[in-house]
Amino acid sequence: MDHEPKTSTVALDPIDQALVDGVLDRRPRALAKAITLVESTRADHARRASGVLDALLPHTGRSIRLGISGSPGAGKSTFIEALGLELIRQGRRVAVLAVDPSSTISGGSILGDKTRMERLSVSPDAFIRPSPSRGSLGGVGDKTREAMLICEASGFDVVIVETVGVGQSETTVAGMVDAFVLIQLPNAGDDLQAMKKGIVELADVIVVNKADIDPAAAEIGRRQLAGALSLLHSSSSPWKPVVVTASASKGDGIAKFWTEIERHHKLLTDTGELAEKRRRQAVEWMWSLIDAGLRSRFRSNPRVRRDLDALSRSVAQGETTPSAAAYRLLDHVESANL
Amino acid sequence: MDHEPKTSTVALDPIDQALVDGVLDRRPRALAKAITLVESTRADHARRASGVLDALLPHTGRSIRLGISGSPGAGKSTFIEALGLELIRQGRRVAVLAVDPSSTISGGSILGDKTRMERLSVSPDAFIRPSPSRGSLGGVGDKTREAMLICEASGFDVVIVETVGVGQSETTVAGMVDAFVLIQLPNAGDDLQAMKKGIVELADVIVVNKADIDPAAAEIGRRQLAGALSLLHSSSSPWKPVVVTASASKGDGIAKFWTEIERHHKLLTDTGELAEKRRRQAVEWMWSLIDAGLRSRFRSNPRVRRDLDALSRSVAQGETTPSAAAYRLLDHVESANL
Repeated sequence: MDHEPKTSTVALDPIDQALVDGVLDRRPRALAKAITLVESTRADHARRASGVLDALLPHTGRSIRLGISGSPGAGKSTFIEALGLELIRQGRRVAVLAVDPSSTISGGSILGDKTRMERLSVSPDAFIRPSPSRGSLGGVGDKTREAMLICEASGFDVVIVETVGVGQSETTVAGMVDAFVLIQLPNAGDDLQAMKKGIVELADVIVVNKADIDPAAAEIGRRQLAGALSLLHSSSSPWKPVVVTASASKGDGIAKFWTEIERHHKLLTDTGELAEKRRRQAVEWMWSLIDAGLRSRFRSNPRVRRDLDALSRSVAQGETTPSAAAYRLLDHVESANL
Repeated sequence: MDHEPKTSTVALDPIDQALVDGVLDRRPRALAKAITLVESTRADHARRASGVLDALLPHTGRSIRLGISGSPGAGKSTFIEALGLELIRQGRRVAVLAVDPSSTISGGSILGDKTRMERLSVSPDAFIRPSPSRGSLGGVGDKTREAMLICEASGFDVVIVETVGVGQSETTVAGMVDAFVLIQLPNAGDDLQAMKKGIVELADVIVVNKADIDPAAAEIGRRQLAGALSLLHSSSSPWKPVVVTASASKGDGIAKFWTEIERHHKLLTDTGELAEKRRRQAVEWMWSLIDAGLRSRFRSNPRVRRDLDALSRSVAQGETTPSAAAYRLLDHVESANL
């Protein structure tokens, strides 16, 4: 009676089965190939990727999923490298994925240059994946969620999703991780003012990095941020956001930071909030993909394309109300089979 | 070559022309009838409303648009009444519209009981409109934007949109006003913690109300909030959010509050930010109505209805990836004419 195919009902072709086995056997090349398959926009690849993901899904869900964001210059990659090395020292395996909304525009990529994390990238217990190109549906981070699941199936204990402090990418990343971390410079006020509104409130942990440069300033910044966060804390979550200081280049504060992440993870697990959060995130992500897909189909409707620019201009100029314009455009798809 | 009808190209039928003239002549009954027409979900009313709005649009845009929110008990209606009476004393005309997401669920309404603003409601220079019922498209506040435009055309100098601190209504209201105001109790920390994340960052002005009860506590609350806001201020806006204290029941702080709103309005006007903000809001509102309309059409597709529940459950349980589910559901409308 179920309409969705179950994991085990569809047999994979031998190539894809080998890929699945390779991912589960923790082979780096298989992992990289599986992510490339998932990121592909080719229709035949999409079908194959769907089968591979279905086969891997029962092996996912056991990692700690960490989102890390911060303005350029805050020392994100130094922090992530120090964190990664510390976790490996503790016997963990670490994957780092990057979501960089500017990569396809500027041609640059946050992690395209692996030398930024030279020591981490050569460790056999680390996997670093540069920013994928924009997908067709959801924009930024379109397939990062799937890449994260593949890393989990490949036995990584911690999956870090790195993003930069621009655009919608923070919200997207916060919507796919267990804990969202903001890396700040000691001059917290100035730095925060350069960020977009709404990002601070996503943070479960804020790190005041480069604290060694001016420990007193870092402590003031930490207190300011802690005060602001206590006012913004949502009563619906059992976790109260915390602010810690660190000096990633010297390795200071990394272990303390990780203790907070583990405390967060344990609290969310024990209260049932983690499972609930992941369920909610998955369904919200499905809906955001559906919305993006619907909008993209809407935009490609010939009559919508004909009228959209003129109506948008007319709305912006106050000549047509937003709802009159919306109804008029929706009328173009009214008779369709949707 | 233009596809959208211009304001003057469509002749209104005599009844609607009389309605337009009545609104422009500042007749309260015409104003109320025009809003009722706009709020109606009947298809023939929607067509007529569209014509009436097109005729009124050239006469809009000259009010100060104010959103006022706050938790129950913060004294919103007392504050709005005191503000309204002060503005009328200064020679201004004031309209108050309510957006109450709970009104159709609970059967209650924030402003259904006009006695809550007894003195304001009897003034010939005030217009108070209770919460409309939910519209078919965008949910909360669906037609509040249109009601606001009709009030503007009817010569109100200030249009206040009131909402309560729940759900998405704050974001919706902040997206249709020039300045967004949050009313708080002196125990700011406790009160804010009861609010949803993301609301404080919408505020241009925060009022610590009921300051007379404990002036010292109110001043501490004001400073805490000002500190938090200074950290959250977006660098993209020329305006830095301010926090003021007030005691609405005694009329204290109301004039000072209004001075801040006027300073905000002048700054945004002088920098060109106001015009830009209103253009942006109008286009964003159009898109949110389009998205809601597309989603509602999507949900009523028979094949989507058949599969949606099972797929949502499967995504929530981690058996299907969000993107596989989204693509599968979108396939149902793929062949449609959309």
